[in-house]
Amino acid sequence: MSKQDRSHRVPTADDVAALAGVSRSAVSRTFTEGASVAPATRDKVIDAARSLGYRVNFLARSLSRQRTNLIGLVVSELDNPFRAAMMDQIARRLIEEHYRPFVLPTGAGGDTRHLIDMMMHYNVCGAIVTGDASPAEIAEECAAYHVPLTLINKPEIGPHADNVSMDAKKAGRLAAETLREIGCRTVAIASQRRPSHTIEQRLVSFAGRCAELGLEIVGTFQGAVQDYDGGREAAIAYLEAGRIAEGMFCANDYMALGLLDHLRRFAKLRVPEDLKVIACDDIAESAWLSYDLTTIRQDPADLAAAAVRSLLARIETPASTRSAAIIDVQLMLRGSTGHPSQIFGK
Amino acid sequence: MSKQDRSHRVPTADDVAALAGVSRSAVSRTFTEGASVAPATRDKVIDAARSLGYRVNFLARSLSRQRTNLIGLVVSELDNPFRAAMMDQIARRLIEEHYRPFVLPTGAGGDTRHLIDMMMHYNVCGAIVTGDASPAEIAEECAAYHVPLTLINKPEIGPHADNVSMDAKKAGRLAAETLREIGCRTVAIASQRRPSHTIEQRLVSFAGRCAELGLEIVGTFQGAVQDYDGGREAAIAYLEAGRIAEGMFCANDYMALGLLDHLRRFAKLRVPEDLKVIACDDIAESAWLSYDLTTIRQDPADLAAAAVRSLLARIETPASTRSAAIIDVQLMLRGSTGHPSQIFGK
Repeated sequence: MSKQDRSHRVPTADDVAALAGVSRSAVSRTFTEGASVAPATRDKVIDAARSLGYRVNFLARSLSRQRTNLIGLVVSELDNPFRAAMMDQIARRLIEEHYRPFVLPTGAGGDTRHLIDMMMHYNVCGAIVTGDASPAEIAEECAAYHVPLTLINKPEIGPHADNVSMDAKKAGRLAAETLREIGCRTVAIASQRRPSHTIEQRLVSFAGRCAELGLEIVGTFQGAVQDYDGGREAAIAYLEAGRIAEGMFCANDYMALGLLDHLRRFAKLRVPEDLKVIACDDIAESAWLSYDLTTIRQDPADLAAAAVRSLLARIETPASTRSAAIIDVQLMLRGSTGHPSQIFGK
Repeated sequence: MSKQDRSHRVPTADDVAALAGVSRSAVSRTFTEGASVAPATRDKVIDAARSLGYRVNFLARSLSRQRTNLIGLVVSELDNPFRAAMMDQIARRLIEEHYRPFVLPTGAGGDTRHLIDMMMHYNVCGAIVTGDASPAEIAEECAAYHVPLTLINKPEIGPHADNVSMDAKKAGRLAAETLREIGCRTVAIASQRRPSHTIEQRLVSFAGRCAELGLEIVGTFQGAVQDYDGGREAAIAYLEAGRIAEGMFCANDYMALGLLDHLRRFAKLRVPEDLKVIACDDIAESAWLSYDLTTIRQDPADLAAAAVRSLLARIETPASTRSAAIIDVQLMLRGSTGHPSQIFGK
C-alpha cells in the first residue's frame, strides 16, 4: 500500500497485520485488554498501527456489546474548591479504569431536562451524581431507565442507587467535642438556607453531641447558599445578634472563609480570642495563612475512589444489593480554635 | 403490548408510534433537531416515549454518520479557580450545542499516553486543550489523526489547530501603566519557574511597557508553579533580596494570594503602603476581603464561548483557515494598588 493510498482510506486491522508481518489475530489480541500476546509481537503491531494511523474502534465495539463505557458525571458549583477537587479525582479514576467521564454541570440556570436527554440519548452505562444543587430528576430518570447510579453525599433514594457519603455524623460529633475541649460553653451554627442532606446530617449530629456535653446552642445564622458570600451573610446576622457565642460551627469551609473575613474586617473580631471557629471539608484554602481554619477533613480522593468502585461493581453485576459506603473523616486542628497551626513552619 | 412484554425488550420507534397513535415518521421527526412536527403530535410522541422508556439511540445514529458528538476536554490543575471556572463554562456551552464534553485531566502523575489512547479510540470529533501543563503530544496526536483542535492560552502549533487567547500583551501593558500611574519607579515580577506560553507573553509585554515608561524592573522572583505555594516561595525570595521594589506584577492571581499572605504574615509588610501589587486573571478569591487584589480580568465565559465557537466551526468545515481569536481583558482596580475597593460596600 503506497503512502498515497493510505491517506485516502481508513486503515484496517488487516493493514496493520500486513505491515507488522503478524497474523490478524495478533493485532486483535494486542488491542484487547488482558489478552495474551508476545511483547515483541505487540511492539511490532503498535509500531505498524502508529505509522498507519490505525485507530481501534472501541466505540463500534462497545456498541455491539451494548456498552458505551461512558459515565455521566453530574456536578454542580465547581466554584467550591471541594467540588472541583472531587470532580478531578472522579474523572482520573474513571479514565484509569477505561471509562469515559462525560461531565454534566447542573445549576447556574442550565436546562435540567436537556442534561437528562443528553445523558439518556447517548446511552451512558452509569452515572455519578454529586453537588448540592443536583436535581432529583436526574436520579429518578436513571432509575427509570435502569442506568446504574452512585450518589455522593446525597440521601438514599431507593434500591436502584448506591450511596457513598462522608461520615457526617462523626463530623458533627467531632466539631462539638473540639469546641467543648477548648472551653466553649455557648456555640453558634453558621449554615445555608437551601436544604442540603449532608449539611443537615452534620448539624443534627453536632446538636445532639452539644446536648450531651452541656454545650448551649445560642443561635443559627444563615446565608443563602454555602459559599463565600453566604458566609459573609451569616456573619452579618451573627453580628446583629450581638456576638453571643464563644464557639462557631460552620457547615462547610467555603462558607467559613467568608464568615472569618467579614467578622475580622468589619467587627475587628479576633479569631480565636473572641470566637473559636471550626468547619467541615478541609479545602486547600483552609490551610492558607489568612484562614488557618480548624476543620473536619473529608478526602475527595477517598470519596471518588469509593464512588467509582461502587458504580463499576453495579455495572458488572446489575442485580447486586444496594451498597452504602461511609467514608471516614479526620479532625484538622489549626489556629482558628487556638491550636498550634501546622502551616506556619512552611 | 402488555406491561410485562415491555420490560423484556428494548422499545422501538414503532412501539412509540403505535402507543401515540401517530406515524413512524412523526416519531422520527420529533427526535430530529430542527425537523418540523405539530406541537400536539410532538407532545403525544414524547408522552408515549416516556411511558415506554424509549431512548433515541443517538450513539448508533452518530456512529453511522461517523460522528460521535464527543469532545475531548483536556484540562489540568483544577485547583486553580480560574481553570475550574473555565472547564465549567466550556462543558455548559458544549452541552447547549448538543456536544458531549469528555473530560481528560492531565498532570498529577497521570499517564498521558493512556489519555491520548482514550481520546483516539473513542473517536472524539474534536478537542479543546487548556491548562498550563497540557502535554504537546496530545496536540500532535490530534493533528496526526485530523481531529479538530482548539487551544486556549497556548502557543500556535501549526495549521491544524485554532487558538483562543486572552490579550496577554494588553494585560502586561495595563499592569505596567497602572503601577506607573500610582507612582512606582521600581517594580518586581513574581512568576513560576515552569515555562508557560501565556505567562511569558504577559511578562514580555510588561517589561516592554516598563521600559517605555521609565519603570525599573529590579528583580524577578519565582516559585515552582503558579499556585498558592508558588506565590509564598516567590515572597520568600523577594524578602531575601531585601524588599527592593515599590510595585509587584504577579503572573497570576492564584500565585498572588500566596505572595500577599506570606509577605503580610511573616514580614508584616503592608499592601499597598509598602508594596503595590497587581496580578492577572480575576478569580473570585481576588475580590475576597483578605486579598482585595487589583488584577487584569480575563473572563472564562468569553474564552469558553470563543473556543467552542471556533471548534464547532472547524468540525463543520474541516478545511477552513486557521483562526486565532484574541479575547479582551479588563483592569479591575482594588485595594492592593491603593485604589478604593469595590468590595467593602457589600
